[in-house]
Amino acid sequence: MAAENTSKVCEAHPMTGGDGPNSYAKNFTLQRGGLDVSKELVRKAIAEKLDGEILHSNTFRIADLGCSVGPNTFLAIENILEGVEFKYKSQGMNSQFPEFHVFFNDHTSNDFNMLFKTLPQNRRYYAAGVPGSFYGRLFPDASIHLAHSSYAIQWLSRVPKAVVDSKSPAWNKGRIHYSNSTDEVIRSYETQYTEDMKCFLQDRAQEIVYGGLMVLTFPVRPDGTPHSDAPTNVIFQLLGSSLMDLVRKGVVKEEKVDSFNIPVYTMSPQELVAVVEQNGCFSMEIMVDMPLLLVHDPILMAQLRASHLRAGMREDLKHQFGEEVLDELFDVYRKKCEEHASAVDPGKTVNLVVVLRRKGD
Amino acid sequence: MAAENTSKVCEAHPMTGGDGPNSYAKNFTLQRGGLDVSKELVRKAIAEKLDGEILHSNTFRIADLGCSVGPNTFLAIENILEGVEFKYKSQGMNSQFPEFHVFFNDHTSNDFNMLFKTLPQNRRYYAAGVPGSFYGRLFPDASIHLAHSSYAIQWLSRVPKAVVDSKSPAWNKGRIHYSNSTDEVIRSYETQYTEDMKCFLQDRAQEIVYGGLMVLTFPVRPDGTPHSDAPTNVIFQLLGSSLMDLVRKGVVKEEKVDSFNIPVYTMSPQELVAVVEQNGCFSMEIMVDMPLLLVHDPILMAQLRASHLRAGMREDLKHQFGEEVLDELFDVYRKKCEEHASAVDPGKTVNLVVVLRRKGD
Repeated sequence: MAAENTSKVCEAHPMTGGDGPNSYAKNFTLQRGGLDVSKELVRKAIAEKLDGEILHSNTFRIADLGCSVGPNTFLAIENILEGVEFKYKSQGMNSQFPEFHVFFNDHTSNDFNMLFKTLPQNRRYYAAGVPGSFYGRLFPDASIHLAHSSYAIQWLSRVPKAVVDSKSPAWNKGRIHYSNSTDEVIRSYETQYTEDMKCFLQDRAQEIVYGGLMVLTFPVRPDGTPHSDAPTNVIFQLLGSSLMDLVRKGVVKEEKVDSFNIPVYTMSPQELVAVVEQNGCFSMEIMVDMPLLLVHDPILMAQLRASHLRAGMREDLKHQFGEEVLDELFDVYRKKCEEHASAVDPGKTVNLVVVLRRKGD
Repeated sequence: MAAENTSKVCEAHPMTGGDGPNSYAKNFTLQRGGLDVSKELVRKAIAEKLDGEILHSNTFRIADLGCSVGPNTFLAIENILEGVEFKYKSQGMNSQFPEFHVFFNDHTSNDFNMLFKTLPQNRRYYAAGVPGSFYGRLFPDASIHLAHSSYAIQWLSRVPKAVVDSKSPAWNKGRIHYSNSTDEVIRSYETQYTEDMKCFLQDRAQEIVYGGLMVLTFPVRPDGTPHSDAPTNVIFQLLGSSLMDLVRKGVVKEEKVDSFNIPVYTMSPQELVAVVEQNGCFSMEIMVDMPLLLVHDPILMAQLRASHLRAGMREDLKHQFGEEVLDELFDVYRKKCEEHASAVDPGKTVNLVVVLRRKGD
């Protein structure tokens, strides 16, 4: 299947599994704030935008794309279920509740064993795990009624090839992200983003039934803001500069930094609108800013940023630079976050919740 | 869901995961022999028994119940796919091939991470993992077209309570299996088997579409043969007597043997026919003996038996008796298998392949 071609290159970027102190499961504070805020929005979308015809299906199929290991994914699914049940009730269909089939998707390297062990005991849905990249097909044609993805589609399918090619004008020497780099590097990332979103929308258009919904939450760069100024990009710039500090101290080799790039692209709302229009299969029904909580204490905020990024990128960093440098790296990083507290404050991050509806005959 | 109630008690009996020397993935020789033999039978069942109406479905859904970690499950699925495709072709429907959605089911404690990592790269189906006991609901109503289960339904959902209760007349002291025990112990196992198969058939009747098939492969005790003489039972009797040898040597505590029972029941064809008739939702379409390969060399055979049983029961035995006794235990066990070579020869084992068809309106 096509899925395998794209999935291989991005299998390298799973969240850290298990439930240790630096695991993703224990470090979801920032994202969870966002989940609480988006709760009402998801219900509203289901109430107002989900096609009524779908209510006559015996099975309601939900996919969470990039689910990681929980507990966020279970909370999100619960919220969707409540929204769908509310819609049935509001239409007087109390006795016609469907059965729910929920598909938890993430990279093959995700810790599905842990995900399965922590599935809610009293769940009222059938659960399945689906391994593979969402930049490829995951489900049969017209089989999904609602696809959800929270803080996942900012991850590209791969690092653009040119930025790690020392002979290319887009070689990203001495940096690990495009956002504070040359125009050539930025263009490489932009091109990769456009290709990936094209795949993502094409594949979901095949999989989602007519009148079905896709709810996407992700950080954005406000229209007109330079790549270098988006708070979610500054986070990676500070990690890059922390790594270069360790290069200067002789702890990390410079080539290791040159060959390491983070495949995260912070799109603007305009860019998303453009790819959705080009795809043509979805209508943009809702697009709302969802502010995260402002953290007023810069020391606490820097700690949160450091533990959050470490949980999310631990495997990649360990693989590239060795586990032994991680403590020192995140110590330097935490201090940089304190110094640039205002630039990386979660309250300054702009997150979008977007609801797309599959157009149909 | 009801599934959780029953699944918890049998989560204790997964196959050994990973790919180490004693893992299930490396020790599938005996079962694989059976798979090869059953290949033609599965194709024949699909060609002759699968309802033609199902061919008009856009998605063909297959479940493998008790799939473990592969590679057997992948071979079985491939065989089913070829059988279904052959049926389409034979009906001149070459251009109307459905999409295949394959659900790999096993206990929550199964190593799904390994299963997912070893999924065939060039597979032509969408894959999903489904954690939970098959003595409970796993899928929405009428969603599965073909359910397959190979060497799994001989496992009961749990050890019958009475056999580990020292105050019960069915206390199974000094033994780990019912087959060489008292009438009371045998009755406890029989009752558990009947309850479990009732659940199994009820739940599958809900999940399998009208005209859909269930293909089951499992070891049986020929009608009229005492429980104590079925080769698959002798295997457990020899393990029990090996453990009692270690009790006499002071390596294992007797209470540990008294409180350990293997929840495997070797049904007879008659017993299966009775539960299927009582359930009433399935017709018995095919029931065929499938001989395993005769192993003429008793030393090789004993080694195969020992490594096979160790792979299948390693986690349970480790948990109950400690990992440190396993080498000695299986050394004793291997010798006993050599001594009783004729009684435990795989060629004497009777395995059934049964094809049930969901009756429909």
